[in-house]
Amino acid sequence: MAEIPDYVLAAALEVFRESGYEQATVRDIAAKAGIAVSSLYTHIASKEELFLGLITPEIDAVAARVDAIVRSDLPATDKLRAAIVSATTAFDRHYPELFIYLRDFYPVLESADPERPGRYEQSWSELLQAGADSGALRGDLDPRVLTYGILGMVSWMYRWYRQGGTYSAAEIGRQLAAMVVDGLAVERVAPGA
Amino acid sequence: MAEIPDYVLAAALEVFRESGYEQATVRDIAAKAGIAVSSLYTHIASKEELFLGLITPEIDAVAARVDAIVRSDLPATDKLRAAIVSATTAFDRHYPELFIYLRDFYPVLESADPERPGRYEQSWSELLQAGADSGALRGDLDPRVLTYGILGMVSWMYRWYRQGGTYSAAEIGRQLAAMVVDGLAVERVAPGA
Repeated sequence: MAEIPDYVLAAALEVFRESGYEQATVRDIAAKAGIAVSSLYTHIASKEELFLGLITPEIDAVAARVDAIVRSDLPATDKLRAAIVSATTAFDRHYPELFIYLRDFYPVLESADPERPGRYEQSWSELLQAGADSGALRGDLDPRVLTYGILGMVSWMYRWYRQGGTYSAAEIGRQLAAMVVDGLAVERVAPGA
Repeated sequence: MAEIPDYVLAAALEVFRESGYEQATVRDIAAKAGIAVSSLYTHIASKEELFLGLITPEIDAVAARVDAIVRSDLPATDKLRAAIVSATTAFDRHYPELFIYLRDFYPVLESADPERPGRYEQSWSELLQAGADSGALRGDLDPRVLTYGILGMVSWMYRWYRQGGTYSAAEIGRQLAAMVVDGLAVERVAPGA
């Protein structure tokens, strides 16, 4: 994909946020950027390409933040809490683009780079595996199954999370992390028992 | 929606499972049912209506199984484990219809009965609230946030679960339930602390 100028991406972001993906038009985006539609088409082939130019760095930024947490010196339980909160707060930072991506665009982005989701999942699995190896996290469950469970829990937010609701995205992350890290049972079965 | 005869639904199920929703045609379904296409159209208006006639009882059956667990005499921690396993095994019982539903059809079904998802979520929230009231489950987290987290964890399986993979749907449910009920931390923060 050719480089799309920043001022075009910024205009597209504003229009997608105001109108939603379906309603947004290339004409609106050109107007917001202060250029002719024909000039916009020298940078992009389609509205889809523009959305991908916008969402790809955002998806990569979420992955980079989680990866930085995984590589940090925090204890494994704190890493897990921080990674979950980082993932839920992405819904605030990248609202509503992340919704459009999760609902409609993930197959398009995956076909552009099929390794991308695997790399992201790998960061989470490494966190869980290293935690188990260090004795801080239980080691009797498959890190890949847990990763899919946690990513599902977070990704599903696109169906129900709305900005300005009862809880902030960070508070939702804190509650979900408490469930995952500490469990809901008051008296629990000893992990690994 | 008019009543669709069972033999038509059975034929449709076979065709959807063999061909997938997109590839399946009303012609194939009529042929499988052993009737003329024109006869099929006396029962249904479209392929979409046929799919909804098929998936609606399946979705209701999942909800009824979870509700029966919630109303049972099991301890709250066992209810929660059983409800999670019941939800994950639905992916085996109703494969691949549940995938098509979660990917494409949930808005159609919701517009037919907007109260349906709310009732299902309510069963889960009641389980968590009653468990907290009895002192078996922690009460410092919002049951609705936990419900969305658990339902997300399970529903996301449509993106990654495949029949015949490493683990059965029941085993995946067992692992996810262990995470949710007992937590991943070997030494945990006391719930409610």
